Amino acid sequence: MMVLVSYDVSTVDQKGRARLRKVAKACQNYGQRVQNSVFEIDLDYGTFCRVKEKLMQLIDVQKDSLRFYYLGNNWHRRVEHFGAKDTYDPEGALIL
Amino acid sequence: MMVLVSYDVSTVDQKGRARLRKVAKACQNYGQRVQNSVFEIDLDYGTFCRVKEKLMQLIDVQKDSLRFYYLGNNWHRRVEHFGAKDTYDPEGALIL
Repeated sequence: MMVLVSYDVSTVDQKGRARLRKVAKACQNYGQRVQNSVFEIDLDYGTFCRVKEKLMQLIDVQKDSLRFYYLGNNWHRRVEHFGAKDTYDPEGALIL
Repeated sequence: MMVLVSYDVSTVDQKGRARLRKVAKACQNYGQRVQNSVFEIDLDYGTFCRVKEKLMQLIDVQKDSLRFYYLGNNWHRRVEHFGAKDTYDPEGALIL
Protein backbone atom coordinates (compact mmCIF):
# COMPACT_ATOMS: atom_id res chain seq x y z
CA MET A 1 0.00 0.00 0.00
CA MET A 2 1.21 3.51 -0.77
CA VAL A 3 1.39 6.10 2.00
CA LEU A 4 2.34 9.74 1.58
CA VAL A 5 4.38 10.98 4.51
CA SER A 6 4.83 14.72 4.98
CA TYR A 7 6.46 16.46 7.90
CA ASP A 8 7.33 19.85 9.28
CA VAL A 9 10.11 19.69 11.84
CA SER A 10 10.97 22.82 13.78
CA THR A 11 14.61 23.69 13.06
CA VAL A 12 15.00 26.72 15.33
CA ASP A 13 17.49 24.85 17.50
CA GLN A 14 20.16 22.18 17.07
CA LYS A 15 17.95 19.45 18.47
CA GLY A 16 15.35 20.26 15.83
CA ARG A 17 17.89 20.10 13.02
CA ALA A 18 19.04 16.70 14.33
CA ARG A 19 15.42 15.51 14.44
CA LEU A 20 14.93 16.67 10.86
CA ARG A 21 17.93 14.67 9.63
CA LYS A 22 16.74 11.55 11.45
CA VAL A 23 13.16 11.81 10.17
CA ALA A 24 14.40 12.37 6.58
CA LYS A 25 16.81 9.44 6.85
CA ALA A 26 14.13 7.11 8.23
CA CYS A 27 11.83 8.05 5.32
CA GLN A 28 14.65 7.72 2.80
CA ASN A 29 15.40 4.19 4.02
CA TYR A 30 11.89 3.05 3.11
CA GLY A 31 10.55 5.31 0.41
CA GLN A 32 11.03 7.88 -2.31
CA ARG A 33 11.51 11.57 -1.64
CA VAL A 34 9.14 13.42 -3.98
CA GLN A 35 9.63 16.86 -2.48
CA ASN A 36 11.65 18.41 0.31
CA SER A 37 9.65 17.03 3.21
CA VAL A 38 7.29 14.76 1.33
CA PHE A 39 7.92 11.02 0.77
CA GLU A 40 5.99 8.24 -0.93
CA ILE A 41 6.39 5.01 1.02
CA ASP A 42 5.09 1.80 -0.58
CA LEU A 43 5.20 -1.03 2.00
CA ASP A 44 3.12 -3.87 3.41
CA TYR A 45 0.98 -2.82 6.37
CA GLY A 46 3.12 -4.50 9.04
CA THR A 47 6.36 -2.91 7.89
CA PHE A 48 4.67 0.45 7.52
CA CYS A 49 3.41 0.32 11.11
CA ARG A 50 7.01 -0.10 12.31
CA VAL A 51 8.18 2.84 10.18
CA LYS A 52 5.30 4.98 11.48
CA GLU A 53 6.12 4.03 15.08
CA LYS A 54 9.76 5.02 14.53
CA LEU A 55 8.82 8.37 12.97
CA MET A 56 6.43 9.14 15.82
CA GLN A 57 9.24 8.49 18.31
CA LEU A 58 11.63 10.73 16.38
CA ILE A 59 9.45 13.88 16.30
CA ASP A 60 8.71 16.31 19.14
CA VAL A 61 4.92 16.32 19.22
CA GLN A 62 4.89 19.82 20.74
CA LYS A 63 6.94 21.38 17.92
CA ASP A 64 6.82 19.12 14.85
CA SER A 65 4.02 17.94 12.57
CA LEU A 66 3.78 14.52 10.91
CA ARG A 67 1.02 13.61 8.44
CA PHE A 68 0.19 10.30 6.80
CA TYR A 69 -2.05 10.08 3.72
CA TYR A 70 -3.12 6.52 2.93
CA LEU A 71 -3.39 6.36 -0.87
CA GLY A 72 -4.25 2.66 -1.02
CA ASN A 73 -3.23 0.22 -3.74
CA ASN A 74 -4.70 2.07 -6.71
CA TRP A 75 -2.56 5.07 -5.88
CA HIS A 76 -1.33 5.69 -9.45
CA ARG A 77 -4.60 7.29 -10.49
CA ARG A 78 -4.58 9.53 -7.38
CA VAL A 79 -1.29 11.28 -8.12
CA GLU A 80 -0.39 14.01 -10.61
CA HIS A 81 2.99 15.70 -10.92
CA PHE A 82 4.01 18.78 -12.87
CA GLY A 83 7.44 20.34 -13.20
CA ALA A 84 10.89 19.34 -12.07
CA LYS A 85 11.99 16.41 -9.88
CA ASP A 86 9.90 13.70 -11.57
CA THR A 87 9.77 10.43 -9.66
CA TYR A 88 10.09 6.76 -10.57
CA ASP A 89 7.27 4.24 -10.18
CA PRO A 90 8.39 1.76 -7.50
CA GLU A 91 6.00 -0.79 -9.01
CA GLY A 92 6.96 -0.02 -12.61
CA ALA A 93 9.14 -2.11 -14.97
CA LEU A 94 12.84 -2.17 -14.09
CA ILE A 95 14.73 -1.98 -17.42
CA LEU A 96 18.36 -3.14 -17.09
CA MET B 1 -13.57 16.32 -3.33
CA MET B 2 -10.38 16.70 -1.28
CA VAL B 3 -7.06 17.22 -3.03
CA LEU B 4 -3.69 17.46 -1.34
CA VAL B 5 -1.45 20.00 -3.05
CA SER B 6 2.27 19.98 -2.29
CA TYR B 7 4.93 22.05 -3.98
CA ASP B 8 8.63 22.74 -4.02
CA VAL B 9 9.45 26.11 -5.53
CA SER B 10 13.09 26.97 -6.17
CA THR B 11 13.90 30.09 -4.14
CA VAL B 12 17.51 30.62 -5.25
CA ASP B 13 16.55 33.87 -6.99
CA GLN B 14 14.08 36.71 -6.47
CA LYS B 15 11.78 35.42 -9.22
CA GLY B 16 11.56 32.10 -7.40
CA ARG B 17 10.71 33.76 -4.08
CA ALA B 18 7.96 35.73 -5.86
CA ARG B 19 6.63 32.50 -7.41
CA LEU B 20 6.59 30.86 -3.98
CA ARG B 21 4.52 33.69 -2.48
CA LYS B 22 2.03 33.55 -5.37
CA VAL B 23 1.67 29.76 -5.23
CA ALA B 24 1.16 29.85 -1.45
CA LYS B 25 -1.38 32.67 -1.75
CA ALA B 26 -3.34 30.88 -4.47
CA CYS B 27 -3.50 27.74 -2.29
CA GLN B 28 -4.40 29.76 0.81
CA ASN B 29 -7.33 31.37 -1.05
CA TYR B 30 -8.93 27.97 -1.64
CA GLY B 31 -7.73 25.61 1.05
CA GLN B 32 -6.09 24.91 4.37
CA ARG B 33 -2.35 24.97 4.93
CA VAL B 34 -1.48 21.79 6.82
CA GLN B 35 2.28 22.12 6.57
CA ASN B 36 4.76 24.58 5.09
CA SER B 37 4.22 23.70 1.45
CA VAL B 38 1.33 21.29 1.80
CA PHE B 39 -2.34 22.31 1.46
CA GLU B 40 -5.63 20.45 1.65
CA ILE B 41 -8.08 21.87 -0.89
CA ASP B 42 -11.71 20.70 -0.71
CA LEU B 43 -13.57 21.95 -3.82
CA ASP B 44 -15.95 20.79 -6.52
CA TYR B 45 -14.18 19.42 -9.59
CA GLY B 46 -14.81 22.46 -11.82
CA THR B 47 -13.45 24.96 -9.34
CA PHE B 48 -10.49 22.74 -8.59
CA CYS B 49 -9.58 22.55 -12.28
CA ARG B 50 -9.38 26.36 -12.39
CA VAL B 51 -7.17 26.42 -9.28
CA LYS B 52 -4.94 23.73 -10.75
CA GLU B 53 -4.65 25.64 -14.05
CA LYS B 54 -3.66 28.78 -12.15
CA LEU B 55 -1.02 26.94 -10.08
CA MET B 56 0.44 25.36 -13.21
CA GLN B 57 0.77 28.80 -14.78
CA LEU B 58 2.46 30.18 -11.67
CA ILE B 59 5.28 27.61 -11.39
CA ASP B 60 8.42 27.32 -13.53
CA VAL B 61 8.20 23.74 -14.78
CA GLN B 62 12.00 23.58 -15.22
CA LYS B 63 12.72 24.52 -11.59
CA ASP B 64 9.62 23.90 -9.46
CA SER B 65 7.61 20.80 -8.55
CA LEU B 66 3.84 20.64 -8.07
CA ARG B 67 2.04 17.49 -6.93
CA PHE B 68 -1.67 16.76 -6.60
CA TYR B 69 -2.97 13.82 -4.57
CA TYR B 70 -6.67 13.13 -5.16
CA LEU B 71 -8.01 11.86 -1.82
CA GLY B 72 -11.63 11.59 -2.97
CA ASN B 73 -14.71 12.18 -0.86
CA ASN B 74 -13.97 9.67 1.91
CA TRP B 75 -10.73 11.46 2.65
CA HIS B 76 -11.16 11.55 6.44
CA ARG B 77 -10.18 7.91 6.83
CA ARG B 78 -7.11 8.46 4.60
CA VAL B 79 -5.44 11.09 6.78
CA GLU B 80 -3.58 10.83 10.08
CA HIS B 81 -1.86 13.68 11.88
CA PHE B 82 0.52 13.64 14.81
CA GLY B 83 2.13 16.56 16.60
CA ALA B 84 1.74 20.31 16.36
CA LYS B 85 -0.26 22.40 13.88
CA ASP B 86 -3.48 20.37 14.04
CA THR B 87 -6.02 21.29 11.36
CA TYR B 88 -9.76 21.91 11.27
CA ASP B 89 -12.19 19.73 9.36
CA PRO B 90 -13.65 21.90 6.58
CA GLU B 91 -16.69 19.62 6.52
CA GLY B 92 -17.02 19.43 10.31
CA ALA B 93 -19.60 21.16 12.52
CA LEU B 94 -19.15 24.94 12.84
CA ILE B 95 -19.86 25.77 16.51
CA LEU B 96 -20.62 29.51 17.01
